[in-house]
Amino acid sequence: MTLKANDPSRKSWVTVEPNSDFPIQNLPFGVFRVSGGDARIGVAIGEYVLDLAAVQEAGYFNIGQLPAGIFKNQYLNPFMELGKAITRDVRERVSQLLLDSNDELASAPGVYDKFLLKQADVEMLMPVFVRDYTDFYSSREHATNVGTMFRGKDNALMPNWLHLPVGYHGRASSIVVSGTPTKRPKGQTKNDDEEQPSFGPTKRLDFELEMAFITSQATAMGESIAADEAENYIFGMVLFNDWSARDIQKWEYVPLGPFLGKNFSSVVSPWVVTMDALEPFRVAGPEQRPEPLPYLKTSGKKNIDIDLEVGIQPDGGEEKVVCHSNFKHMYWNINQQLAHHTVNGCNIGVGDMYASGTISGPEESAFGSMLEIAWKGTKPVQMPDGTERRFIHDGDTVIMRGHCEKDGLRIGFGEVRSKVLPAE
Amino acid sequence: MTLKANDPSRKSWVTVEPNSDFPIQNLPFGVFRVSGGDARIGVAIGEYVLDLAAVQEAGYFNIGQLPAGIFKNQYLNPFMELGKAITRDVRERVSQLLLDSNDELASAPGVYDKFLLKQADVEMLMPVFVRDYTDFYSSREHATNVGTMFRGKDNALMPNWLHLPVGYHGRASSIVVSGTPTKRPKGQTKNDDEEQPSFGPTKRLDFELEMAFITSQATAMGESIAADEAENYIFGMVLFNDWSARDIQKWEYVPLGPFLGKNFSSVVSPWVVTMDALEPFRVAGPEQRPEPLPYLKTSGKKNIDIDLEVGIQPDGGEEKVVCHSNFKHMYWNINQQLAHHTVNGCNIGVGDMYASGTISGPEESAFGSMLEIAWKGTKPVQMPDGTERRFIHDGDTVIMRGHCEKDGLRIGFGEVRSKVLPAE
Repeated sequence: MTLKANDPSRKSWVTVEPNSDFPIQNLPFGVFRVSGGDARIGVAIGEYVLDLAAVQEAGYFNIGQLPAGIFKNQYLNPFMELGKAITRDVRERVSQLLLDSNDELASAPGVYDKFLLKQADVEMLMPVFVRDYTDFYSSREHATNVGTMFRGKDNALMPNWLHLPVGYHGRASSIVVSGTPTKRPKGQTKNDDEEQPSFGPTKRLDFELEMAFITSQATAMGESIAADEAENYIFGMVLFNDWSARDIQKWEYVPLGPFLGKNFSSVVSPWVVTMDALEPFRVAGPEQRPEPLPYLKTSGKKNIDIDLEVGIQPDGGEEKVVCHSNFKHMYWNINQQLAHHTVNGCNIGVGDMYASGTISGPEESAFGSMLEIAWKGTKPVQMPDGTERRFIHDGDTVIMRGHCEKDGLRIGFGEVRSKVLPAE
Repeated sequence: MTLKANDPSRKSWVTVEPNSDFPIQNLPFGVFRVSGGDARIGVAIGEYVLDLAAVQEAGYFNIGQLPAGIFKNQYLNPFMELGKAITRDVRERVSQLLLDSNDELASAPGVYDKFLLKQADVEMLMPVFVRDYTDFYSSREHATNVGTMFRGKDNALMPNWLHLPVGYHGRASSIVVSGTPTKRPKGQTKNDDEEQPSFGPTKRLDFELEMAFITSQATAMGESIAADEAENYIFGMVLFNDWSARDIQKWEYVPLGPFLGKNFSSVVSPWVVTMDALEPFRVAGPEQRPEPLPYLKTSGKKNIDIDLEVGIQPDGGEEKVVCHSNFKHMYWNINQQLAHHTVNGCNIGVGDMYASGTISGPEESAFGSMLEIAWKGTKPVQMPDGTERRFIHDGDTVIMRGHCEKDGLRIGFGEVRSKVLPAE
């Protein structure tokens, strides 16, 4: 299908700086409010948010099946649930309204008052209601790094890893939007050289650079989604910081997996970039050997070339970028993840979130967590202010950014940031 | 506090058979509907459901802060969220209305038409909306049995087990109410003697006898709940069948825990028995050595004496009870579970569900899963029809029942049942 909204030659009458993440070819959806007012759904364009509730009220949407007031909502869920035919029509219409050759909206009196708001002047909210959240572990480089650290190079990958996209259920309630600070969690830990566990603030607070996809269509219990049809269920993606307390996780995770080492906070970027907008940046994934079982086979380009970076900014200090990675490195693609998740009949819902697992690349500079970057604390990162980082300090803000770029077109995710507050 | 509703001498004008789970001292809450009509909240009494929506509409509740229409709801969540002061008043008032010496409701014309419905004539629905679901692993006997089978007697318990209530996040979307059948899940498995994994229906479908508690008060991110205050957040309990596909689980669970081996279905009993009703059956738990860290210490009787049993009924055949266990055996109590869950600031919500993990007792007859009962398939169970069970067969219905009994008073949970349908 050819989407007019993806046409790289399109320009908007709204100013979009060349390095902006939000040109007219992106048009991601998010939820915002102005000075504590009601939440509404908007689209990012340049430095602005287009208020879709206002656009609809003013009669600019001539889309039959679009319910009145659908954009006056705290979450994208009811909008996404309308289905791709309708949400795609909305994105196409928004693109048309923002097109430099179209003056329908551009000529509306007070357009920068009524319809377009500076992103700097609005508060972005959690974009979706996440009922169920799953975290995968799909970067071969990350799994190998962690495995090497804890079990040695020869046993780095577990026997199942190359056969299925390993995943586990995470905490939905503590997924929050960019800007929300993260309080250093307390918990039970035990060093190898200690006899007894002790209790206190984590000493190994870490980020994990991840991306997450969001489903917009539900299945019934007992249904499965075929790998090559998974895209029909996926609305879009966000950046995802899967905060981790390594010392808590290490002591608790055997045999049932991570729990308190993860569930104190995960932070997402506010703009959901649609799969449609990401389509031009599709690439082939790594070769999969051994060959996956038939239910995990996909055809065509299922990976996406998304440049990713992580910065650490000490309180009042200068940011240092500590990681450059790319989503294209993922061994297991999102179609395979969703097919695997539902092959046993597990039902999925609208707004469910599925994170990738830490996205590490082959080079050291592409490692996606402090655990790997500082290699278990043995290679501390030198910060511009002369301090060192093995893990994240109180007062540090961790910032993740992501964007696609091809033939001069840049489609971005904005950023996800969270500042670490001391334990109480 | 003395609750009149708990007075063992109370009798109701509604007939309650001596072996009923639902005497006037119980009064559990559930959600029901009649022939596809709207969902509403009711209370079980003997073989009847008292329709609380009808009772409120007729003006029998003189409780100031009880919102109109609060019982016309698909879930108990908004009712529970009113807080214990109000929900306790409602239970006290219901007890008063059902008391044999009170003819307010008893004398209402058409009382068995308007207010009391036969349980056999209504459809029970999922009682709460579960946003987040956690499964613990708190039976020492179960953890020891499973550990012995897989790692030998000397390494049965993991080093962390006696120091913290091990738990993990489970799937909320696939928790369903008693009566919902369970389709045999398909998935990837690999026997130890096989080179490559294969795909197909699970060959080791198992139940896990568990109980779950439900929270009725939310916390904000960063807040913790003290172990001795946990009860203030807990509304009540249900029976919980944590269906498990042992072969899928075995291959997938390293290193991040159970996923597709569990998330295809969990089934709960429809009546939420309040903590108030369970109060008379409190007992001391097992001695905890080593002593738990201060944040896990509780005082007083925190375990509950609840007799539990599991039956297997082949299609059209005779049921065989294969397990008699008791909730009092749990090593970690529910206060400790909730304190541990929130000690890192993980926020909880109204309607969240927390299962106990398999409840096994010290005797073989008290083992709470087929994995343990048939000891990895080496001790098959003989069924009345001459067949054997190592795991659960297609067409089998698994039934769990639970009740407390003391000084002639019986408070029960009813049952949770689910029939296994073949894989498609």
